[in-house]
Amino acid sequence: MSFLLNTWYVAAFAHEVRGDAPLARTLLGRPVVLCRNAEGRAFALDDRCAHRFAPLSRGRVADGAIECPYHGLRFDGDGRCVHNPHGDGRVPSQAQVRAYPVLERFGAIWFWPGDVARADAALLPSFAFVDPDANLTHHGYLKTRAHYQLSADNLLDLSHFQFLHPDTLGSEAIAQGDVETAGSDTAVLVRRSTFDETLQPFVADGFGVPPGMRVDRWMDVKWMPPGLLMIVVGVTGAGIPREAGRIAPSAHWLTPETERTTHYFFAFGLPNSMGDAGRELVRYAVDGLMKPFELEDLPMLEAQQNNLGDADFWSAQPALLPIDQGAIRARRIMERLIASEREREGDAGPRVIPVKPAFAAA
Amino acid sequence: MSFLLNTWYVAAFAHEVRGDAPLARTLLGRPVVLCRNAEGRAFALDDRCAHRFAPLSRGRVADGAIECPYHGLRFDGDGRCVHNPHGDGRVPSQAQVRAYPVLERFGAIWFWPGDVARADAALLPSFAFVDPDANLTHHGYLKTRAHYQLSADNLLDLSHFQFLHPDTLGSEAIAQGDVETAGSDTAVLVRRSTFDETLQPFVADGFGVPPGMRVDRWMDVKWMPPGLLMIVVGVTGAGIPREAGRIAPSAHWLTPETERTTHYFFAFGLPNSMGDAGRELVRYAVDGLMKPFELEDLPMLEAQQNNLGDADFWSAQPALLPIDQGAIRARRIMERLIASEREREGDAGPRVIPVKPAFAAA
Amino acid sequence: MSFLLNTWYVAAFAHEVRGDAPLARTLLGRPVVLCRNAEGRAFALDDRCAHRFAPLSRGRVADGAIECPYHGLRFDGDGRCVHNPHGDGRVPSQAQVRAYPVLERFGAIWFWPGDVARADAALLPSFAFVDPDANLTHHGYLKTRAHYQLSADNLLDLSHFQFLHPDTLGSEAIAQGDVETAGSDTAVLVRRSTFDETLQPFVADGFGVPPGMRVDRWMDVKWMPPGLLMIVVGVTGAGIPREAGRIAPSAHWLTPETERTTHYFFAFGLPNSMGDAGRELVRYAVDGLMKPFELEDLPMLEAQQNNLGDADFWSAQPALLPIDQGAIRARRIMERLIASEREREGDAGPRVIPVKPAFAAA
Repeated sequence: MSFLLNTWYVAAFAHEVRGDAPLARTLLGRPVVLCRNAEGRAFALDDRCAHRFAPLSRGRVADGAIECPYHGLRFDGDGRCVHNPHGDGRVPSQAQVRAYPVLERFGAIWFWPGDVARADAALLPSFAFVDPDANLTHHGYLKTRAHYQLSADNLLDLSHFQFLHPDTLGSEAIAQGDVETAGSDTAVLVRRSTFDETLQPFVADGFGVPPGMRVDRWMDVKWMPPGLLMIVVGVTGAGIPREAGRIAPSAHWLTPETERTTHYFFAFGLPNSMGDAGRELVRYAVDGLMKPFELEDLPMLEAQQNNLGDADFWSAQPALLPIDQGAIRARRIMERLIASEREREGDAGPRVIPVKPAFAAA
Repeated sequence: MSFLLNTWYVAAFAHEVRGDAPLARTLLGRPVVLCRNAEGRAFALDDRCAHRFAPLSRGRVADGAIECPYHGLRFDGDGRCVHNPHGDGRVPSQAQVRAYPVLERFGAIWFWPGDVARADAALLPSFAFVDPDANLTHHGYLKTRAHYQLSADNLLDLSHFQFLHPDTLGSEAIAQGDVETAGSDTAVLVRRSTFDETLQPFVADGFGVPPGMRVDRWMDVKWMPPGLLMIVVGVTGAGIPREAGRIAPSAHWLTPETERTTHYFFAFGLPNSMGDAGRELVRYAVDGLMKPFELEDLPMLEAQQNNLGDADFWSAQPALLPIDQGAIRARRIMERLIASEREREGDAGPRVIPVKPAFAAA
Repeated sequence: MSFLLNTWYVAAFAHEVRGDAPLARTLLGRPVVLCRNAEGRAFALDDRCAHRFAPLSRGRVADGAIECPYHGLRFDGDGRCVHNPHGDGRVPSQAQVRAYPVLERFGAIWFWPGDVARADAALLPSFAFVDPDANLTHHGYLKTRAHYQLSADNLLDLSHFQFLHPDTLGSEAIAQGDVETAGSDTAVLVRRSTFDETLQPFVADGFGVPPGMRVDRWMDVKWMPPGLLMIVVGVTGAGIPREAGRIAPSAHWLTPETERTTHYFFAFGLPNSMGDAGRELVRYAVDGLMKPFELEDLPMLEAQQNNLGDADFWSAQPALLPIDQGAIRARRIMERLIASEREREGDAGPRVIPVKPAFAAA
């Protein structure tokens, strides 16, 4: 198992990254420190001073640079040491920490763990509906104790609503719904449609459906590498055309913390034009989902991971059902991308993220 | 170090395994789920759904089958998927979890982790005196943080009563008692006899001996593979023939949880004919032993294991005393049985329990 | 990474080692038991009975020997089994635990983990100023969750006072102080001098300096293998000759507990002739240092170790500054000593401390 490096991952929500205090976060197994410079531009560095490996994240911000809490060296957003308080103040050439390309988009800070030269903002897919400039948005975060692809599997097969979330998201009609799976080399689409079902109060209320009313529901999941998902749930009266219904779009971004833990960022967005009603709806959705996510999905994902142990997913010989088509497509895409990344590097063997790649070239 | 597979181990006490809720237990390093079918017959499966590795033990029981809590597949007592709620309901041929041969005997559920074809109820030794049909029985359970053979060593050399349990089971006379060791290819017998000693109140009261009375005591330990012991303690007045004394028989069953932890099941039984007095005595014995077992034996076994670390017992070069003869015989029997099991499989090297052996043939 | 074995390490403060109860302590990765015999002489044994690996430290002391809590064997200060309570009482020849050469000096118990034949009291450097016979002394102990050489680095570069301990030991003048580094094959000297600074109250009060007074301060650090340091801090009025000032000498002894944890023993001593004032000063110094050491140094050292992981210090490619000269010299001395120890043993490969070297010869 290995991570795709030349791609954008969410490192944090934008509001988490500040100019007056660094934020520590482990991303793809690496300790990273996130901060903003004097102009408010976010940056990401290895959270490890070049001098004696102290965590920069415990330091203070001085003149838009992070000051190491141990001996006072300061590093700017490019990872350059810009201040040595000792002796003649000369900065040794190795006093450089790795800096990651960073983007601020859609209410999130994105970072690129691969080759700096290949980092391209155009490769980031759009999640415009959660762009805070034009939308009312609300965010949720959970730490999942499982490989991030187990979380992607979870989101790509919402049939589990019936069994894992019977009191909130599920109904008896889900497993018997229609499922269409489609996709390309770089995306997977799964549409699950259920007919003539009664929604649990949490979903019914969210869509403004009266108690007990029979409805049709559709759930469109779009997955993109490395683990970026958009889910649109729609509800309409049973037999009524979808155009007459209401929809709720959400973003789900999975970033590996380690091989066995995942940062799960999710967000709802509705147009600014919806005003207070929209503001209330995105809060309702995020707050209401925290309970089933935290109390039902998280323990299940952790239990799966425990049962899988260090074994590769395929070596565990999963029995595949038609409902797994989307998840399997997504896994195959990731396998191709990772293999192609390795090949490009002329290294077909197992691959470890170098601890200080910046130094290899220095 | 490796476990003997073609043998019966206790998986649980019979009362722990129910028809309305599955029981999760790690046995020989494997997650196992125990349950009863609609007829009340106990069964044991790998606690890992064939589909996505979810723990079946967190599911509910439906029509005598266990329903996976993640996507609703149901598995019967033979590990067959008997229900797929999705789409056309077809069950893929790999949707099979490993089922273990199971017996219900002597108040316990026994499972056979080896080849199904070799599982034979006749190989289970008798512990008739704790059969609940004809006896008043009481049970105790402790988790030991040590390899199960360190627990067997403990029970095969009760001289430690004097040093580890001075206030409950021991006396100053024990280390100087007579010890006879005997056995066969499949059993070890150790008889320890002490003479003219004064018992601690816990033992004296249990045997109805007045405070301060001088007695002779004998403790017969019978060990059978893989770690099944019967201990009969007898007490009589000092110099009085044993036939005039009273005895207390107990069963001690050791099942590896992992290489470093052990399920320790123990039970006392007296004939139904003893009525309330017998009922009280078996409770008195089990309840009274919990304290020295838990507060004295468990920390010692854990400390031994910590000092041993991952080293093999023999590589740690123990200094052997005559009191170790029984324990060493038992270890030699286990080594022969494990070596012969490996040879039979044409595999002389180190052996790992396969995660899904049922699939190898499927 | 490996430890130097043929050298003296502090095992405990003298007052911790008693004749009526053994003390358990892990030293260089080994469980060791410390005790005193009937004559009050301290001894150190492997904390692992030769019979069944029980920790001797949980036993009682009987006739100046430690009695194993499991089966009652007794071992004297030379590790010889001097009593077997079982059967004919014969002691098998392997019933011997490893005994370490031990010295009691300077208020501490020192042990020698290497070849017994090379243990030589003359190799122990003097810390006469904390010898309790002639001095008023006070001691502090902390467990550091980092390799002991990271702690030595910390003490060899006190520039960190400014950044890590700004409210107690530091001042804005420290990083700009003068640093002189010197040394030999077996010692490193670092003198840091600061000029015209204002001390924080903790240091000012300790030296009897009025609030706000401008002073010069010098901090002389002497390091000796394997991790024995003497620090003398002196303070005088700004521009006043050092001879007119006051000094505070302290001892800092680092003993590896494991590859990633360290016993940090430190002590202050002043001549008996100083009476109550001296008694109060050594207490003031030790008690006052506990807070910055515990709340500031310990988390930093642990964070450094976490960032370093299992990597070798040099493989992490630290950017070196002039302030690192002392620490680097000390590391180079240790590398030479360890390499030379390995060479002497005709073993150039990685080296593991044998678990029971005494048995190799038996």
